[in-house]
Amino acid sequence: MFPKNTWYVACTPTEIDDKPLGRKICGEAIVFYRGAEGQVAALEDFCPHRGAQLSLGQVCEGQLVCGYHGLAMGCDGKTVSMPGQRVQGFPKIRSYPVVERHGFVWVWPGDAAHADAALIPHLEWAESPEWAYGGGMYHIHCDYRLMIDNLMDLTHETYVHTTSIGQKEIDQTPVATKTEGSTVVTSRFMENVMAPPFWRANLRGNNLADDVPVDRWQVCRFTPPSHILIEVGVAHAGKGGYHADPQHKVHAVVVDFLTPETETSMWYFWGMARNFNVKDKALTAQIREGQAKVFAEDTAVLEAQQANLSRYPERKLLMLNIDAGGVQSRRILDRLIALEQAPDQQPALA
Amino acid sequence: MFPKNTWYVACTPTEIDDKPLGRKICGEAIVFYRGAEGQVAALEDFCPHRGAQLSLGQVCEGQLVCGYHGLAMGCDGKTVSMPGQRVQGFPKIRSYPVVERHGFVWVWPGDAAHADAALIPHLEWAESPEWAYGGGMYHIHCDYRLMIDNLMDLTHETYVHTTSIGQKEIDQTPVATKTEGSTVVTSRFMENVMAPPFWRANLRGNNLADDVPVDRWQVCRFTPPSHILIEVGVAHAGKGGYHADPQHKVHAVVVDFLTPETETSMWYFWGMARNFNVKDKALTAQIREGQAKVFAEDTAVLEAQQANLSRYPERKLLMLNIDAGGVQSRRILDRLIALEQAPDQQPALA
Amino acid sequence: MFPKNTWYVACTPTEIDDKPLGRKICGEAIVFYRGAEGQVAALEDFCPHRGAQLSLGQVCEGQLVCGYHGLAMGCDGKTVSMPGQRVQGFPKIRSYPVVERHGFVWVWPGDAAHADAALIPHLEWAESPEWAYGGGMYHIHCDYRLMIDNLMDLTHETYVHTTSIGQKEIDQTPVATKTEGSTVVTSRFMENVMAPPFWRANLRGNNLADDVPVDRWQVCRFTPPSHILIEVGVAHAGKGGYHADPQHKVHAVVVDFLTPETETSMWYFWGMARNFNVKDKALTAQIREGQAKVFAEDTAVLEAQQANLSRYPERKLLMLNIDAGGVQSRRILDRLIALEQAPDQQPALA
Repeated sequence: MFPKNTWYVACTPTEIDDKPLGRKICGEAIVFYRGAEGQVAALEDFCPHRGAQLSLGQVCEGQLVCGYHGLAMGCDGKTVSMPGQRVQGFPKIRSYPVVERHGFVWVWPGDAAHADAALIPHLEWAESPEWAYGGGMYHIHCDYRLMIDNLMDLTHETYVHTTSIGQKEIDQTPVATKTEGSTVVTSRFMENVMAPPFWRANLRGNNLADDVPVDRWQVCRFTPPSHILIEVGVAHAGKGGYHADPQHKVHAVVVDFLTPETETSMWYFWGMARNFNVKDKALTAQIREGQAKVFAEDTAVLEAQQANLSRYPERKLLMLNIDAGGVQSRRILDRLIALEQAPDQQPALA
Repeated sequence: MFPKNTWYVACTPTEIDDKPLGRKICGEAIVFYRGAEGQVAALEDFCPHRGAQLSLGQVCEGQLVCGYHGLAMGCDGKTVSMPGQRVQGFPKIRSYPVVERHGFVWVWPGDAAHADAALIPHLEWAESPEWAYGGGMYHIHCDYRLMIDNLMDLTHETYVHTTSIGQKEIDQTPVATKTEGSTVVTSRFMENVMAPPFWRANLRGNNLADDVPVDRWQVCRFTPPSHILIEVGVAHAGKGGYHADPQHKVHAVVVDFLTPETETSMWYFWGMARNFNVKDKALTAQIREGQAKVFAEDTAVLEAQQANLSRYPERKLLMLNIDAGGVQSRRILDRLIALEQAPDQQPALA
Repeated sequence: MFPKNTWYVACTPTEIDDKPLGRKICGEAIVFYRGAEGQVAALEDFCPHRGAQLSLGQVCEGQLVCGYHGLAMGCDGKTVSMPGQRVQGFPKIRSYPVVERHGFVWVWPGDAAHADAALIPHLEWAESPEWAYGGGMYHIHCDYRLMIDNLMDLTHETYVHTTSIGQKEIDQTPVATKTEGSTVVTSRFMENVMAPPFWRANLRGNNLADDVPVDRWQVCRFTPPSHILIEVGVAHAGKGGYHADPQHKVHAVVVDFLTPETETSMWYFWGMARNFNVKDKALTAQIREGQAKVFAEDTAVLEAQQANLSRYPERKLLMLNIDAGGVQSRRILDRLIALEQAPDQQPALA
């Protein structure tokens, strides 16, 4: 259950710099590569000649050359040439709208007629020199909506991430959830607490004392189809918290782009953008390493949860106040999917 | 095909000493752990909140705390607490009758109303200081009834266990089979034979000559659902065999508790209890190591047999005289399963 | 989709020299072993007693002894003996016609009544002292007909085997295809080209200059069910090419016997027979090593192709001129399969 008339993160640019990349997205087997001018192309990963995976071939002067018999494919899905063959009558393969922007490659797996690059979210932190970004990607065997639940309810940090970002005060502090249009926001503000290890390291990373009480915040923003950006940070206690002057705080955006592969598996693009000490590459690497461990913990929990849910498909789950963020996000998704399946409708996200 | 209104060995006590254990038994995914007073609890391995596996959580002061959002579960399947939540209305999860006794944890995967701890077999060797016990557990991909067949017909030792307990005289000696109530006994007595390596080692372990002829015996006792205790031993030839004075023999009980996981997989709890040289821990370890090799040989044969039978589900197998022990044991099981499925019946084993 | 009333290569003789071999062929689980006089036997891999795999047993004096309870099986599928048992009434298991010839073991997985050893192809290179042979076997997860397509259209060498036998001139040279009875021949002759690495090594192996232009040929011969023998070679340019005097050329036969395991997997027996420098065992080993790399490249391509085709079962593939060899070979197969399934017909290959 996922909308298809929408933009998903398909890969990072470096994944296609030197060879084609085959990746299944929303059930579609797609090959990504760079065409003649370096622009990204996305095609069905199926050679029209004998069905070989085009992603096993090579890119030669902007054409995707099948690794089996040398069929050269153009970015529009039309065969350009093949040794010894007249290719005009070859069937066209499907091409997908694809855009490289903000440090990611975005693909529209649904009806190309509705694709509009203006619908790709603007990511200020990805463009501004005042921000630094580092991240990674995990392939996870769970319904992407379990990850939405996970990210829109951070009480799990206390239990799943005990050695990094978890702390008792998280689930002692109430969470506020609100929906505005198709955006869901859950927020939690903790006051006068000691920072957990991940944040103590970031305080040090911004040359701030790490052994004094802090105010800590988490503001999770879901926008469809499955982008979750989380403002996180700590400020020395009493300096204004979320609104504190930059010299008293460390502030960052946890970046989560979830891309369904199948009904029960997903690609998880995760990272962190920060606007302090942005030139410190060692700090970027250290944060990425810390996040990699944290998200590996989530991966283990979610894959086990998925296995359990698949075992008991008839079970109803509880929807508590802490689950409101996930519940409201799923409602927006349900509406988009219904719209998409209704005839004579505008595209889901227009 | 297995009875569920009966006691099975679920695990050994040490498996749950420091953390919960998730194990599927008779198709039921169960989490085992120790409650506040150290007593064993057994619950559905499914958190009522979001379906996480409770067995991935932790035990805190006798409560099973879910590793995802901190729901604390009581031994009766009722949620005790959850941070920031009122839990009175949470749905109860299933709890299973469970008893720790004789060095094993026993679970009743069927209708709890019929569970009676008095039905757990008494194991004298597990309680008496005159006996020593060592054992292990294997997870085997076969119908547990193939293991019943295997253990109730030891002629296979000649072919499967050629380097340890097998010897030509086993299948040259006729076997006697009899059924008394729900107990099936197969027995074989060999006279004036040379002991195979495993028994020569045990003779030495009891300070007896290992290079002289012996009388050897095997008395296999099946009781439902799938407990097989095998009296085995050798005595110096002509000293009375099975009835020989302890100073002339080594005598032991091979312990086999078979617990179905699914229709085609099982947990195999195996070991050996002996009443000679019981304080010699090195001997216990040596015997266990020997048994581990022997039962690994059975595992390979039975998994291949299961694969072959699954490939040819319509084939009828032969039921020879040597198979009588398995055939009669299966008949008892069939009767118990039929009883269990009949309405208005007493519990199968009452 | 494969004919069963025909001879397939089952294994090489060394595979059964010291123990039985279990191998599934055309969906039949078969055990191969050597009987009392060293002759090959082929039986259902299923012990009539309890369904154990006979291939896990041992051969004792020409009888296949089950590794579970010692049942001794004869080459005709009749039980010869079993300790303590009268075996006259034991059900017979199926035996398969099997012949050892030309360095291979051939099996007839279909109706034994139609089996005729005279239908096994004569392989001159396997018998004559003027030829040397080396080869190997791969288990490949693809429909054997994808391998037929692959071998009957060598244009893929340019793309798949770029570092060994591929060269640009292959797909610049037209291919001729003809069908004569149930034989399909595709041929390609290249003139005045530089030899690729594999052939330069062979020129050196026959003490010929490797840095001069050559004429190169490929003549692929398909005969049912799935034997493909390919005459390949190079001669110094202008010396007559395919017909050049032996002193000016290196000539060989690439040997490909394809044996279906299931609808989507196969056993691939590959090798090369040559009639130059036949006593040079180091050369034989070097050629085999080169071929092993080449066919591993095919394996990767074909397994990915099979996965893609299984994903899109409804897609039609193109049938270009270069595919004519595969297309015509498949037509012959279709005819044989139809004949086999028609009632009251002669055997497919008679």
